[in-house]
Amino acid sequence: MHDDSKGFFALDRELNRDDYITLVYRFECTGDPWTAAAHLCQEQSTAQWKRVGVDEDLRGIYGSKVTALEVLAKLEAPSLPGMLHHIDGQLHAALVHIAYPIINFGNRIPNLLTAILGEGVFFCPSIYAIKLMDIEFPDSYLEQFPGPKFGIKGLRAWTGIKDRPLFMGVIKPNIGLDPQAFSDLAYQSWLGGLDIAKDDEMLCDTTWSPFAERTRVLGRARADAEQRTGKRCCYLANITDEVDRLLMMHDIAVRNGADMLMLNAMCVGLSAVRMVRNHTQVPVVAHFDMIAPFSRVPGFGVSSIVVTKLQRLVGFDAIIGIGLGSRMKSTPEEVLSNTRACTDPMGPIEPALPVPAGSQWAGSLKPLHDMIGNADFAIVPGRAVFNHPAGPKAGAIALQQGWDAIKAGVSMEAYALSHEELRQSIGDILG
Amino acid sequence: MHDDSKGFFALDRELNRDDYITLVYRFECTGDPWTAAAHLCQEQSTAQWKRVGVDEDLRGIYGSKVTALEVLAKLEAPSLPGMLHHIDGQLHAALVHIAYPIINFGNRIPNLLTAILGEGVFFCPSIYAIKLMDIEFPDSYLEQFPGPKFGIKGLRAWTGIKDRPLFMGVIKPNIGLDPQAFSDLAYQSWLGGLDIAKDDEMLCDTTWSPFAERTRVLGRARADAEQRTGKRCCYLANITDEVDRLLMMHDIAVRNGADMLMLNAMCVGLSAVRMVRNHTQVPVVAHFDMIAPFSRVPGFGVSSIVVTKLQRLVGFDAIIGIGLGSRMKSTPEEVLSNTRACTDPMGPIEPALPVPAGSQWAGSLKPLHDMIGNADFAIVPGRAVFNHPAGPKAGAIALQQGWDAIKAGVSMEAYALSHEELRQSIGDILG
Repeated sequence: MHDDSKGFFALDRELNRDDYITLVYRFECTGDPWTAAAHLCQEQSTAQWKRVGVDEDLRGIYGSKVTALEVLAKLEAPSLPGMLHHIDGQLHAALVHIAYPIINFGNRIPNLLTAILGEGVFFCPSIYAIKLMDIEFPDSYLEQFPGPKFGIKGLRAWTGIKDRPLFMGVIKPNIGLDPQAFSDLAYQSWLGGLDIAKDDEMLCDTTWSPFAERTRVLGRARADAEQRTGKRCCYLANITDEVDRLLMMHDIAVRNGADMLMLNAMCVGLSAVRMVRNHTQVPVVAHFDMIAPFSRVPGFGVSSIVVTKLQRLVGFDAIIGIGLGSRMKSTPEEVLSNTRACTDPMGPIEPALPVPAGSQWAGSLKPLHDMIGNADFAIVPGRAVFNHPAGPKAGAIALQQGWDAIKAGVSMEAYALSHEELRQSIGDILG
Repeated sequence: MHDDSKGFFALDRELNRDDYITLVYRFECTGDPWTAAAHLCQEQSTAQWKRVGVDEDLRGIYGSKVTALEVLAKLEAPSLPGMLHHIDGQLHAALVHIAYPIINFGNRIPNLLTAILGEGVFFCPSIYAIKLMDIEFPDSYLEQFPGPKFGIKGLRAWTGIKDRPLFMGVIKPNIGLDPQAFSDLAYQSWLGGLDIAKDDEMLCDTTWSPFAERTRVLGRARADAEQRTGKRCCYLANITDEVDRLLMMHDIAVRNGADMLMLNAMCVGLSAVRMVRNHTQVPVVAHFDMIAPFSRVPGFGVSSIVVTKLQRLVGFDAIIGIGLGSRMKSTPEEVLSNTRACTDPMGPIEPALPVPAGSQWAGSLKPLHDMIGNADFAIVPGRAVFNHPAGPKAGAIALQQGWDAIKAGVSMEAYALSHEELRQSIGDILG
């Protein structure tokens, strides 16, 4: 190991943990993994730690530091083809724990992102592939972030649903309907017992569905549905838009009767989410666009778990993300880790409601319930509700029947014998 | 091909191109590539295109449409391991051109991003790997975006440098110096002829270098250096911060004498950049943090070229991105494509100055000049200037000498025989 590398290592017990966040990276490198890890710290913190002609070493306070390194394997070839441009020695895979000094960037999200996912991380000599696997924060740091305003407890109070998963539904056709036609579908779904009818993540403020008009029409329909059903009927409006319009979009939506708001988190940026969180009067829900391109590849980018933690940190009350099923291209372990990142203790930060998504229907309830081990989650079907053969009301009823079957300890197929809407759902989905 | 798929195909000549952006994706799929491409269009636009019981088809106006598909290869195995969870037929690689209706999202950046890089794109049945390779916009769409306020022409007027590449330099040590010590280094580099002394992308508004104080001290030093050198000396201040602080950061910086501003584009979000562009009084420069995690993997995510185009669209005057050299893990072709994405005709959008970066020094000028074919670029060394054995002034002088050697048609080594600062640079870099 090069002599200069030593300044980028520290023993965990030597550090005041309140001063550091912990970053866990998996990387592949050519040559010595310890030298590579030191380079990583150098590139992502004090690239040059002394002035010419001055006897100083800024690494003590400002350098990020390797606190643990585990060599996972010697490799014959890179696990990702096309990433390695210069071979210079034996290839290794390693897992490294890095303590990163908070004093370098403070409590600002864009500066945190620069530190953990910036140029230095991905363009480090000899490291040809790297993925940020996890992140941990000291409580004294977490205290500086808002976290969810409502959280799971608040969402249960908001919706009035105490002891089962929340039923969200993506109103479909998602694109192309005028506000009245769109609202009529939501209304039907509410009559069937859907808790939250929501805009698709693609639906925004458009010429054919102006946001002000859509929220006004849906807000009225929601009030009507509540009167008819005697239960809370939520409309989750997608306010994803230019960041300097977000607070205005919030105000329009809330004034017009939308009672939950959605943001496509990475498309507006996590900092913009924090801004909305500090302003919002209603629960705010994350949609997971633009997370896949940097989280899906094993061995490169950033783990979805890190993104989930950051989304909770900036204040989402519910987080729609990857769920079970082949379309979601993820393992049950990753889905479970993400739900836990929503709900595990995180200092003063409230739990967020996990919403593992993807082509769901009544039959999605049981595997999620079994995996998570409790009812603190939501499902978010689209076509299963709004393309149900008997229409959206029947589609929503089928969700409740799916849950009732679980509570009765009966298979869905058996329960469907006496429950027509569920029977039709099963027929439609399973062919 | 499934009958429903046909609604997601169109002939280019049937479409009014003013109504569509063009997306070029490379994907790998199991089974029929045409069906996969139709599914892609469905997932990313009208997931469900008719209501139950209504005879309608929303795909005509709102569906994205395959206009060309080229099967690139039959594959024996996925090009990326770990991405394919269910094999269902022969594997193919394909290149698809998709016309995406602008009416779905309008001229808002976060909604554009949702369409082109959202859930639908990355969680499409049978497509297990996909990368957005390129994007094209009709002029009528481009007119709705600001583009660079200064651009290359404006930057040349701003700096007074007419006929050579601009010399930027990242002040180092990048992290840990107080404003006065930091400013002293910038001052020395300006005396040596550096055009633009800049904050590192990691440096922000911190307790040990408060932004207001740093910009005040550097602003004064800049004025002094201009008086002593008789030439413009720019200070590029990094205003990357929470989005609701950006305009304030701009105002502080400009009032205190910073005359160029930097944003870590993806860390604040492209929409926030557009907001700053609409407010700024000085040139705005992009830094490339958090682009690598979704652009470096061949075959997954988004091409750096797309990100460069989007950065130009929202108004960056100069774009720091991947440059030549092994640390940058990119091919010369990709670097060149990115410089061209900055400068190629783009309707009413001004050219932005390309700044291909990464461990640069005087010797970086010639390969870039040869590749680009003109002097419309900047280099942005850090340690080569600020860790020059004789200090930052000598480091800056060496850059000019490197350029003078090119103009004289002499090799750097030959020119260095009579130019001490360049000789020391060569010794330091090449050992």
